[in-house]
Amino acid sequence: MSILVVGSVAFDDVATATDSRERLLGGAATYSSCAAGRFAPTRLVAIVGDDFAEEHVELLRSQGVDLEGLERAEGKTFAWGCRYEEDMNVRTTLFTDLNVFAGFHPKLPQSYRDSELVFLANIHPDLQHEVLDQVDDPQLVVCDTMNLWIETARDSLERLLERIDVLVINDEEARMLTGERNQLRAAAQLLQRGPKWLIIKRGEYGAAMFGGKGLFIVPAYPLEEVPDPTGAGDTFAGGFVGSLAAAGRIDEAAMRRAVVHGSAMASFACESFGLDRLLSLTPEELAGRVKAFRDLSSFED
Amino acid sequence: MSILVVGSVAFDDVATATDSRERLLGGAATYSSCAAGRFAPTRLVAIVGDDFAEEHVELLRSQGVDLEGLERAEGKTFAWGCRYEEDMNVRTTLFTDLNVFAGFHPKLPQSYRDSELVFLANIHPDLQHEVLDQVDDPQLVVCDTMNLWIETARDSLERLLERIDVLVINDEEARMLTGERNQLRAAAQLLQRGPKWLIIKRGEYGAAMFGGKGLFIVPAYPLEEVPDPTGAGDTFAGGFVGSLAAAGRIDEAAMRRAVVHGSAMASFACESFGLDRLLSLTPEELAGRVKAFRDLSSFED
Repeated sequence: MSILVVGSVAFDDVATATDSRERLLGGAATYSSCAAGRFAPTRLVAIVGDDFAEEHVELLRSQGVDLEGLERAEGKTFAWGCRYEEDMNVRTTLFTDLNVFAGFHPKLPQSYRDSELVFLANIHPDLQHEVLDQVDDPQLVVCDTMNLWIETARDSLERLLERIDVLVINDEEARMLTGERNQLRAAAQLLQRGPKWLIIKRGEYGAAMFGGKGLFIVPAYPLEEVPDPTGAGDTFAGGFVGSLAAAGRIDEAAMRRAVVHGSAMASFACESFGLDRLLSLTPEELAGRVKAFRDLSSFED
Repeated sequence: MSILVVGSVAFDDVATATDSRERLLGGAATYSSCAAGRFAPTRLVAIVGDDFAEEHVELLRSQGVDLEGLERAEGKTFAWGCRYEEDMNVRTTLFTDLNVFAGFHPKLPQSYRDSELVFLANIHPDLQHEVLDQVDDPQLVVCDTMNLWIETARDSLERLLERIDVLVINDEEARMLTGERNQLRAAAQLLQRGPKWLIIKRGEYGAAMFGGKGLFIVPAYPLEEVPDPTGAGDTFAGGFVGSLAAAGRIDEAAMRRAVVHGSAMASFACESFGLDRLLSLTPEELAGRVKAFRDLSSFED
């Protein structure tokens, strides 16, 4: 199945309590398309500036990402900086320079319109609508969002919920969207508003998928060192969509396996700054981690 | 296998954002012995005052709890009050009236000394030492503690770690004991200090067991309503020890199943104020929830 990813490509400055990096290739669509591309051919729609070098293009291409939909504009690529506290659950955004991204309107090449799996990474819901206006008849639309849009573009987001199949958000966003602290009740509410499935990302505690034949919960893979969790959620979504594309079908078993694949990919994303660990990842390492997920939660009657 | 539980029996006043109860039969040893007693005969060592009525005695006995070790003293039973915020992870203790518990020194009846499984519920580590001085040769010693003892009785607690097999604490206590925020590294440290296994209770995110043949993680059973989470951790520990006793052996499979049984029992404890739901629980309901735990995390390759 063909995958389409739409979202931001950026250069990230990331500082942790012990280390830092500048101008890392990042952005939600970068992480998610690289993760998806490992499983199946992935089309990317995004915008970059004239500081986006050939090496970055080659890097994305090497991960199975089709770049026909990568728009180049005059000016600088979106740049973003953050700092993590020692408790890495606490992240402060230091700057957000939208640059060419400020005027971005996703334009799908003709060849992308038949995409079967669509991942709408976190961008303004109006732009996510524009993407859906340009695809023919996708089998599954997966969508991320963020607190900013819940606060500032709520109507658009609510209308978007009616057009998507899978909403992938974190626990705080689920609370904001519903006013419900209890995840089961929040999920029940959200599943009434459009999506057939809801995946709540729980950070260091993993992910939970609601909808389908029953709740499915996967812990996060425990890591001794987390050099940089940036992009873990996007990598999860990319691995999730990629796994479904590789499976070639969308049913309970494929959805559950996709959550595990997404979780495994996200765990690797945390093992280095930027994309490094995802780039070095071998199929054997991925298979090993999927097995580790099984071992983590297996018990005999 | 015979189970011994030592800890507090109390009357609890519990207030939540929407409801409240007074003089509930509670205390760590009450919850854990009632949970353990469901699986195997359980001996209780604790102290109560002259306000502890025959109905309370009968209630404990009805749950398979042997009360030869229940000391009666002149004065009032330990009483404790708390209030939960709307976010039930936030609990404020309103009062702690130790009463007869202030002078408690656990005295094991002769018939208890051969106990094979010992659960030291949360009491001062000096008292936990006194219990271990009175048992012959237990096959497994499981121990809980709290932030207060980590701060005020650290030396005694550290010495206790060398005498126990399974430490059951929450994530905050693991951090306090080790100074490590990362659970894997905290666990590695704690497993070097004595216990062979470490179970970290993660509240609404379940529990993780370290040691043995590999990490084991169980999510919490999701509930739409949590009327009162008081005693969930103690019920977990009781169900855990009870499950091992019923299995009659202590190996990887039995330990993992015990964590699931503990988690299942803890989820029922949250479904009512006090012990009510544990008292009404049928074997079929428990088996159904254990199956639900399997469904929650099962996926196909």
